[in-house]
Amino acid sequence: MPAWKVTLEYDGARYRGWQSQKNTERTVQGVLVRAARELFGEEVSLGGAGRTDAGVHALGQVAAFALERTIAPAAVARALNARLPDAVRVMSAEEAPASFHPRFARDKTYRYRMCSADVMSPFERRYAWHISGALDVDAMQAAAKMLEGEHNFAAFQATGSDTKTTVRTILQSTIQSAISNQQSAILVYEVTGDGFLRHMVRAIVGTLVEVGRGRRPVSWMADVLASRDRGVAGPTAPSAGLFLVRVSYG
Amino acid sequence: MPAWKVTLEYDGARYRGWQSQKNTERTVQGVLVRAARELFGEEVSLGGAGRTDAGVHALGQVAAFALERTIAPAAVARALNARLPDAVRVMSAEEAPASFHPRFARDKTYRYRMCSADVMSPFERRYAWHISGALDVDAMQAAAKMLEGEHNFAAFQATGSDTKTTVRTILQSTIQSAISNQQSAILVYEVTGDGFLRHMVRAIVGTLVEVGRGRRPVSWMADVLASRDRGVAGPTAPSAGLFLVRVSYG
Repeated sequence: MPAWKVTLEYDGARYRGWQSQKNTERTVQGVLVRAARELFGEEVSLGGAGRTDAGVHALGQVAAFALERTIAPAAVARALNARLPDAVRVMSAEEAPASFHPRFARDKTYRYRMCSADVMSPFERRYAWHISGALDVDAMQAAAKMLEGEHNFAAFQATGSDTKTTVRTILQSTIQSAISNQQSAILVYEVTGDGFLRHMVRAIVGTLVEVGRGRRPVSWMADVLASRDRGVAGPTAPSAGLFLVRVSYG
Repeated sequence: MPAWKVTLEYDGARYRGWQSQKNTERTVQGVLVRAARELFGEEVSLGGAGRTDAGVHALGQVAAFALERTIAPAAVARALNARLPDAVRVMSAEEAPASFHPRFARDKTYRYRMCSADVMSPFERRYAWHISGALDVDAMQAAAKMLEGEHNFAAFQATGSDTKTTVRTILQSTIQSAISNQQSAILVYEVTGDGFLRHMVRAIVGTLVEVGRGRRPVSWMADVLASRDRGVAGPTAPSAGLFLVRVSYG
């Protein structure tokens, strides 16, 4: 049975996250399964690379499904898009080996956007965290760099999570200033790793902002990591600023 | 009676344009008048520099109102923002001479965004016109340049308009490629002039796109201008791509 790999962009502002839930159609997985059912006339089982939370966006989420029918590759993206809400788009579709499962990624990249303008731009209200007051970007960058490498990220995992191991390898962790489309001052944190714990990127950002505000020194990041205690790290940053940018396979 | 000049950003996607209408509160002017009434406890008369249409955005709309009460400048923007929906923001507020009227601008700048990616980015769906197929940017730029200077823009005015003169001076008219926040290929048209007729920027963009698609030669722009006939120019581009960027005073 041929498998299809699709790459997705979505504006998650009005969605209750990736994963289908009972009693609500308003999940990204839910609208995709429905569009596929309408298109193919059969129920598909559709898995994703990452379970983005409510309000989180994607520029390169990857999903896959197996299909009884044979279908022309060029038609898949176009036909799904015709049945999807315009907040969810299939950017490309390709056939994949039957063994392909999007969860088994080599690495993923997330981006987190912060708006440090005095007044929050209306165009950023669903796509960035508004942080008023100056942020020390150099200090944040130094703290971000300390996360690169293999570490136990237990301090950055949502409480109540139950994972086999909290050790992950971060390949790149950087923060930089930018100017948005609509000319707002934006800070962009980008992180690539072989895997992420639940709420990990948002907990890292909440911790970086404590450093950026000068409430904690750069060296505090090492203390947080070493503590393996969620209570020690900064708060969980709001979901609106977070984007799943890219998923890579070996 | 002191006057207040406020500079506004708004996401016009969910608004029925700038101007207050009977039977609907959902205009930008309407929410501003309501916020001012709540704040100051008096009815204010509030005028704007440009009457943006439904779905059109602003990065630098200017409005003004006169107020009986005296109020601390620093408080005006903050207090209005606390009462406004987050799609409408007062970026700055300052006292102005009683004679100040925002309509008497020296020049205004509009921007129009087009997305030429194969699949429309979800993040651009309310902020750009999706044009599938290749566009010849050099041809569009050459045609855009032909609009600079003093011309009779009757061919680019919404039918049924009743203005004293359709002569306007365009100071700058340029188009360029860009990459959006979310990495989509974007074309940005920017135009500065001493005044604009109703739907003028959108009619210019519709005409430029005819040239960009290769349906018409660059020289056609001169023919359209000379015709002074709205029926000769291209279609009116959708409102979602248009931004009032800046209003300047002498």
